[in-house]
Amino acid sequence: LARFAAIVNGVPDASLSVADRGLLYGDGVFRTFRAYKGLVNAWRRHFDKLSGDCARLGIGAPSRQVLEEDLAQALRAAPDAVVKIIVTRGAGPRGYAPPKAPSPTRIVSTAPLPQYPSGWAGGGIKVRVCDVKLSLQPRLAGVKHLNRLENVLARAEWDGDQFGEGLMLDCNCRVIAGTMSNIFVWSKATLATPALELCGVAGVTRDRVLDFARASGIRAEVRELGLEEVLAADEVFLTNSVIGAWRVRELGDRRWEQAEFTAVVRQALERHED
Amino acid sequence: LARFAAIVNGVPDASLSVADRGLLYGDGVFRTFRAYKGLVNAWRRHFDKLSGDCARLGIGAPSRQVLEEDLAQALRAAPDAVVKIIVTRGAGPRGYAPPKAPSPTRIVSTAPLPQYPSGWAGGGIKVRVCDVKLSLQPRLAGVKHLNRLENVLARAEWDGDQFGEGLMLDCNCRVIAGTMSNIFVWSKATLATPALELCGVAGVTRDRVLDFARASGIRAEVRELGLEEVLAADEVFLTNSVIGAWRVRELGDRRWEQAEFTAVVRQALERHED
Repeated sequence: LARFAAIVNGVPDASLSVADRGLLYGDGVFRTFRAYKGLVNAWRRHFDKLSGDCARLGIGAPSRQVLEEDLAQALRAAPDAVVKIIVTRGAGPRGYAPPKAPSPTRIVSTAPLPQYPSGWAGGGIKVRVCDVKLSLQPRLAGVKHLNRLENVLARAEWDGDQFGEGLMLDCNCRVIAGTMSNIFVWSKATLATPALELCGVAGVTRDRVLDFARASGIRAEVRELGLEEVLAADEVFLTNSVIGAWRVRELGDRRWEQAEFTAVVRQALERHED
Repeated sequence: LARFAAIVNGVPDASLSVADRGLLYGDGVFRTFRAYKGLVNAWRRHFDKLSGDCARLGIGAPSRQVLEEDLAQALRAAPDAVVKIIVTRGAGPRGYAPPKAPSPTRIVSTAPLPQYPSGWAGGGIKVRVCDVKLSLQPRLAGVKHLNRLENVLARAEWDGDQFGEGLMLDCNCRVIAGTMSNIFVWSKATLATPALELCGVAGVTRDRVLDFARASGIRAEVRELGLEEVLAADEVFLTNSVIGAWRVRELGDRRWEQAEFTAVVRQALERHED
């Protein structure tokens, strides 16, 4: 917390108006990713996703140039960090109605790289199935917006490092995602990841994995996924822009020993793209 | 906006840490109500609801005494105002996991009383049915939490004062609430309001109306409600702690002329309680 630093609307400043709709209603979107030596992998995708999510909510996104200036400023102070970019609809008159002349707020912050247990990246993680179910909301599905109480409640179901991640099902018991990650299964040389038209967040790393599969001639499906299919898969892995890809080693009674395809994906994700 | 004033953790200050989970995840709850001449009607209920909502999210609620001190400070500066109290889980390390030693943030703010069109309070309002549907989440239903994007999207469906409120249905097309209010129908001398076990916010004014009905020997039902039943009702009214009760005058092709029962409810809500 002490090393947390933030730039609000271009100004180094760790505070925000309490009239900001990001606080009042979660009326905004965000991105989280790693920087190494001041560089961000797949920055173009992150910017496009942020802009696209802003458009879904009708928020005017900051320009790429403005965000790149903020980012450069943040990364000069913390070149190796987890970066978070938040864009909110800004402050406005009281009430749910979006302001007629909104002035969006942008926040670029850095935090220390996470200290996950050393075995997780290579050896995989133990995963649980969360009790909290994701609700269905097509108007918000796929968007990384600031309404994340379901993720908070799900993550609160376990303490510390006993699990590396929790799987979230929707209220029809379809597998959707981890609390902070997307999920892929690899079975019979086919990759599959859940469709996210009704809930969940369509992450940038998920897109990168799908693009890698397509470019490599690997069959990849985006569709409904059941828990039985996850348990029966040859490999299961979880992705986000901080962890890359973690293989699942244990889920309930099921254990996975091999993770050859996941290792290939991990390597592909390390490759730098603009 | 200029007259917006806030007290954060007891200190007059209009800013907040951008590491606050209220902003990052909507990880908090709130209350909105009116003050007249420095007095808040039904304050005990507001405090109980705020505490209960904190408990639903596992957030340690501020004591009543602490909040009353904040409130007194805010109302000295603005005795006639809309008051908003927000309690968040506070700042913490990065990630969805609630901090092990959370330090909740409390924000008490005041804003000018709203300037609704003069006819609305007595003459009733025109209401629309919103396109955005409420998703079903029993873990959060009833709680006035900070994840309010569905309300924002619904309220964004119309401009200005052409409608006084929008009705929100759930994804099974049951009537749940207005974007900022609870709904009641009055038919054949029976009051009914939607059950809120799957979505919606169980407001303090809704409770006051139900208690008034019980105390007056009026039959009151809390149950599923369909749109046809709303359209067929003798009277329909909407409640919250800022507006009291507004009768619905028009919904689609349906117009209501009478509102005798709603007038009785309006009067009952004016009565001061501690």
